[in-house]
Amino acid sequence: MSDQNINIPEVSVDCVIFGFHATDLKVLLLKVDDSEYWSLPRGAVSRKESLGMAASRVLKETTGIGNVFLQQFQTFGAVDRYKHYSKEQTKAVLESSKKEATESLSYQSTISIGYYALVDFEKIAPPFKEYQWCAISEIPNLLFDHNDFVDMALVSLRKDLRYLPIAKLLPEKFTLRDMQNLYETILDREFDRRNFHKLLMRYEFLIKLPEKRKGGANKPPNLYKIDVEKYETALQDGISY
Amino acid sequence: MSDQNINIPEVSVDCVIFGFHATDLKVLLLKVDDSEYWSLPRGAVSRKESLGMAASRVLKETTGIGNVFLQQFQTFGAVDRYKHYSKEQTKAVLESSKKEATESLSYQSTISIGYYALVDFEKIAPPFKEYQWCAISEIPNLLFDHNDFVDMALVSLRKDLRYLPIAKLLPEKFTLRDMQNLYETILDREFDRRNFHKLLMRYEFLIKLPEKRKGGANKPPNLYKIDVEKYETALQDGISY
Repeated sequence: MSDQNINIPEVSVDCVIFGFHATDLKVLLLKVDDSEYWSLPRGAVSRKESLGMAASRVLKETTGIGNVFLQQFQTFGAVDRYKHYSKEQTKAVLESSKKEATESLSYQSTISIGYYALVDFEKIAPPFKEYQWCAISEIPNLLFDHNDFVDMALVSLRKDLRYLPIAKLLPEKFTLRDMQNLYETILDREFDRRNFHKLLMRYEFLIKLPEKRKGGANKPPNLYKIDVEKYETALQDGISY
Repeated sequence: MSDQNINIPEVSVDCVIFGFHATDLKVLLLKVDDSEYWSLPRGAVSRKESLGMAASRVLKETTGIGNVFLQQFQTFGAVDRYKHYSKEQTKAVLESSKKEATESLSYQSTISIGYYALVDFEKIAPPFKEYQWCAISEIPNLLFDHNDFVDMALVSLRKDLRYLPIAKLLPEKFTLRDMQNLYETILDREFDRRNFHKLLMRYEFLIKLPEKRKGGANKPPNLYKIDVEKYETALQDGISY
C-alpha cells in the first residue's frame, strides 16, 4: 500500500440473516472450516457497485441466497474492532471466504456496513455444510465484532418493526397464531390474542385462504397469505401494534 | 494510487445539522466560496478513528460545533453519486474544505456515512459566513447526492422519533406549545393541544419552572425544562405520541 493511501479505510458488507422457526428467531452463522470459530457472512465492497448491490452479491456468493429483503441497519467502524481476536482467528475466518479476490481487502477492513436479511426459514436450508441456523438466544462468541452486529440488527428490527415487511419471515401460507408468534418473539412481549388478530385484520393485507392447517390436535386453524400491494401500502404509514 | 488498491472505496462522513426555529425545521448548509453551489459539511474518515469520532471531528472542524447529539442514519454508496455534477462543481465544493489534508481523499470518496445532529438553533449561529440555516422546505439543489442525505435524515428522524432526544432542538427553557410545534413540524401533522400536553406530562420528564415567557400578547405561558435522567429513561422505551 502506498503512503498516500495509508489513511483510507477499506469497506466490507456483513450480513445478519434472520429466519423464524416455531417460536425462535434465528440467524444464519458460518462455521470456519476445521476450527471452533463462527462469524457472519461478509465480503468486501468494490468501487464499482452500490452498497445494496454489494450486499446482494455478498449474500449470494457466500450463502447462495438471492432475491430476499435486505435492509441496511448500521455502519461499524470502531478502531478497536479486532482487538478481541488473535491474528490467527481473524485469518482463519477470512480464509474460509468463497471469494479469493476479496480476501486481502477483507483482512484489513476497518469499516463494515451491516445489512440484515429477512428470509423464509422453510425455503432457505443452510446452503453449505459450514452454515448453521442458530437461535438468537444461543449465539456463540462470534469473530470480529459480529456479536454487536446481531445485537444492533435486532435493535433496529424492533425499532423499525412498523415499517418492515416482517411477514417475509413467515412461509407463504401461515396462521394468525404464526404471525402473533413472530411479533411476540421479535418484541419479546405477549399480545392478547383477540385484540392482536383484530388489529391485524384492520389493515386488510391478510387474505384468508380456503385451506386450513392440518395435523394439529385442536380445531385446524385458518391459513392466510399476504396481499403484497396492501401490505406495502400499510407499511408506508407503519403498522401499529 | 497503486493497482492493488484500485477497488477500495474511500469513506467520508457527511452531516445534516438540524435546528428548529419558530415553526421551521432547518438545516445548516455550506455555500462554496464565490460560487452558487451548496453542500453539507463533510470530511474524510481516517483509519485511526471510529466513525462516531470522525463525525464529531468533521463537525467541529468544518462548523466549529461541538458536543452535540449525533446520530448515524444511513450509509450512501451508489456508484452514480456524482453523475449529476460536473468535475468543476465537485472540485469547487471540495476546495472549500477547511482541511487540506483530506481534500484528495474527499474528491474520490464514493462511500459516505450520513450523520445528523440535533442542535439548539439559538446557541448555534452559523459559524462562518459561508454557512447558512435553510428551512427544510426551501433547500436548494445541493452538490453530490446531498439532497438525498437531507431527505433520508428526515425520514430517519420521523421513523425513530420515539427514541430520539428531539428536545435537544429546543432552547433550554421552552413552553409546551414549543414542544408541540416541534412534533408537528417534524411529523407534518397537527395534534390536539389538550391531549398532546396530557400525553407529554405523563412521561414526567418535563420540569415546570417558576418563570413564564414574557412578551406575548396573551396570558404568558409557563416555561419548562427537561429532566435529563427521566427523559433518557422514557426514550429507552420510546415516547408515544
